[in-house]
Amino acid sequence: MLENTIKDIQNLSKKGLETRAKILNAAEKVFGEKGYYEASVVNITQEAEVGQGTFYNYFESKKHVYDELIQQYSRELRITIKEEMKKAITHEEAQRYGFKAFFNWVKDHPALYSIVQQAVVVDQELYRWYYNKLASGFLKSLSQGVQEGEFRETHLETVAYCLMSIGQFLGMRWVFWEGQDVPDEVFDAAMTLVFKGIKKH
Amino acid sequence: MLENTIKDIQNLSKKGLETRAKILNAAEKVFGEKGYYEASVVNITQEAEVGQGTFYNYFESKKHVYDELIQQYSRELRITIKEEMKKAITHEEAQRYGFKAFFNWVKDHPALYSIVQQAVVVDQELYRWYYNKLASGFLKSLSQGVQEGEFRETHLETVAYCLMSIGQFLGMRWVFWEGQDVPDEVFDAAMTLVFKGIKKH
Repeated sequence: MLENTIKDIQNLSKKGLETRAKILNAAEKVFGEKGYYEASVVNITQEAEVGQGTFYNYFESKKHVYDELIQQYSRELRITIKEEMKKAITHEEAQRYGFKAFFNWVKDHPALYSIVQQAVVVDQELYRWYYNKLASGFLKSLSQGVQEGEFRETHLETVAYCLMSIGQFLGMRWVFWEGQDVPDEVFDAAMTLVFKGIKKH
Repeated sequence: MLENTIKDIQNLSKKGLETRAKILNAAEKVFGEKGYYEASVVNITQEAEVGQGTFYNYFESKKHVYDELIQQYSRELRITIKEEMKKAITHEEAQRYGFKAFFNWVKDHPALYSIVQQAVVVDQELYRWYYNKLASGFLKSLSQGVQEGEFRETHLETVAYCLMSIGQFLGMRWVFWEGQDVPDEVFDAAMTLVFKGIKKH
């Protein structure tokens, strides 16, 4: 699926790429507002101000444009987090920067965030692909922390899943539900849990 | 909504309660297999082997029976976790028992688990209610751990969200996706993270 999409893009002219992006932006808005099941191709073409025929030149179906949005979201989010993490000196700092980058991303892309969450119903396999991809990124950065002696040796895929889940829930709780930044005391409490655990002694 | 439902139940005969439970069990199966949007009242009544009129004696709509399933799930899950936690001596042990109880619950109720996840699209408010309720339970048990000096003083609602999210993702990753128990090394790695953090020194 991913390979096909990329091949399609390579054959497009500059104008074609612009039209495709316009449809994707419109779809992002429509899926975010109405949800996947209530949204129609007509809603998307109206929002994008293109004809239905134009839509089908670029995407086979509503599902196809949905898949592409999630893949695009996944790619861009992972690049953004990676770039932010590069600025850090310690591995703890890198993880903190990664969390911050994720929360900022949710703030800037609430519709895309909602679209990913919808995948739990729309396409369980795609949902799983998305979280596996994200976990792989965590796994890589955690492994480096272990190799350099900063993090303890442990079942790293599990720690990756734990960190990912914490980011997911705090992003949902504060950024998506409340429409605000994650408060400093919340961020600090989560980071203390992650790096020091909850036990006092 | 919750109060209405309870009042309705109180007026039912033993036979009425049985029919209502039969509809709920059928709905659990249908929503779990088809998903909320693909499922119809007809699917539910056929599965329950009751007439459509009977369905509407107990529930106003497909959405009403869905709401009731989530409330029932929430109630039963919280009671189960609480009972398990009572068996523990330390607060760390209590939290571990709580996680185990949750994973066992997902194993025994995969359809209900899926139904809760679907709420992210079906009813965002209900989804939020479900997680707030679950977080309250964590908050209470964590507070006791702090009061008795076992856990560090921190922003406890955040720690509650972090623990809840870890349970949620590991339950999804292992029990729901793979259909197996959470492996021991995974459970141990998550508990080490929660209680000791990831830093080596």
